[in-house]
Amino acid sequence: ARPRVGYFFAGKNTKSLLAEKVRSIKVSEIKAVPVVIKEETSVYDAIVTLFLEDVGTLFVVQEDGSLCGVVSRKDLLKIAIGNADIRQIPVSVIMTRMPNLVTVTMEESAFDAARKIVEHQVDALPVVKLKEAEGKVKYEVVGKVTKTTITKLFVELGRV
Amino acid sequence: ARPRVGYFFAGKNTKSLLAEKVRSIKVSEIKAVPVVIKEETSVYDAIVTLFLEDVGTLFVVQEDGSLCGVVSRKDLLKIAIGNADIRQIPVSVIMTRMPNLVTVTMEESAFDAARKIVEHQVDALPVVKLKEAEGKVKYEVVGKVTKTTITKLFVELGRV
Repeated sequence: ARPRVGYFFAGKNTKSLLAEKVRSIKVSEIKAVPVVIKEETSVYDAIVTLFLEDVGTLFVVQEDGSLCGVVSRKDLLKIAIGNADIRQIPVSVIMTRMPNLVTVTMEESAFDAARKIVEHQVDALPVVKLKEAEGKVKYEVVGKVTKTTITKLFVELGRV
Repeated sequence: ARPRVGYFFAGKNTKSLLAEKVRSIKVSEIKAVPVVIKEETSVYDAIVTLFLEDVGTLFVVQEDGSLCGVVSRKDLLKIAIGNADIRQIPVSVIMTRMPNLVTVTMEESAFDAARKIVEHQVDALPVVKLKEAEGKVKYEVVGKVTKTTITKLFVELGRV
């Protein structure tokens, strides 16, 4: 606790104050609303959803709502320029699939989320809640953190 | 100037110190390398370039190297799912064109760049240098600032 004397000791410089602040913001405070689709959705319908919802990443869920994949604008563009019939192919064929997904939880920090985005070179992370069903661990999608989320947060930090 | 007494007066609280730091970082310190293509490039070749260079946005330049447009993954996906022959259509048909481009200069701050990205809902800004040629003002592309750039910067701020 700082002394209530109108000043505080400069043991902490601006850099460490900033780092502390960045690490103190929780994913739960910044998460955005995720758009989810089902595994059976065609690539074409996924692209339409992407445009209608104006997002860059879609999260793919099973019948019971648990996360099974992620599909990005990049994945969709790659298949769209091929000769495949994108109205016939389900997104499950092209999505990145569990357990290869990078996820984040509500309790992690904005810093953790941003670091995962940079290190794993993804545009978006699903925010997940672990739940057990039929003796298996499943992930419920409760939000997302994207490069847009982090950019907006950066702007907030810069406002006085 | 702060008194050299091991503490400083708390006229500036943490929030304003942070905002000051965020606003003090210049675009010139954080800019990334832009990928440019010519106006005549076909949409198909633009998409190939996007994948080869692993970027999300391409900057379109005229013969003299001056900026005339920007084309995003979203623009390319939109045309790719249409019935158009993307090997025949030049990117100039689908790009966002000058003077509708949002740009940033070296002297502006990372905060300015991030704010423009959020407000104009774009993924990337070209960093431009003004030059005069034939009595006209032209823009040379000398870098880019993207949501990825800001996310990486955010991670740097969180490192102690």
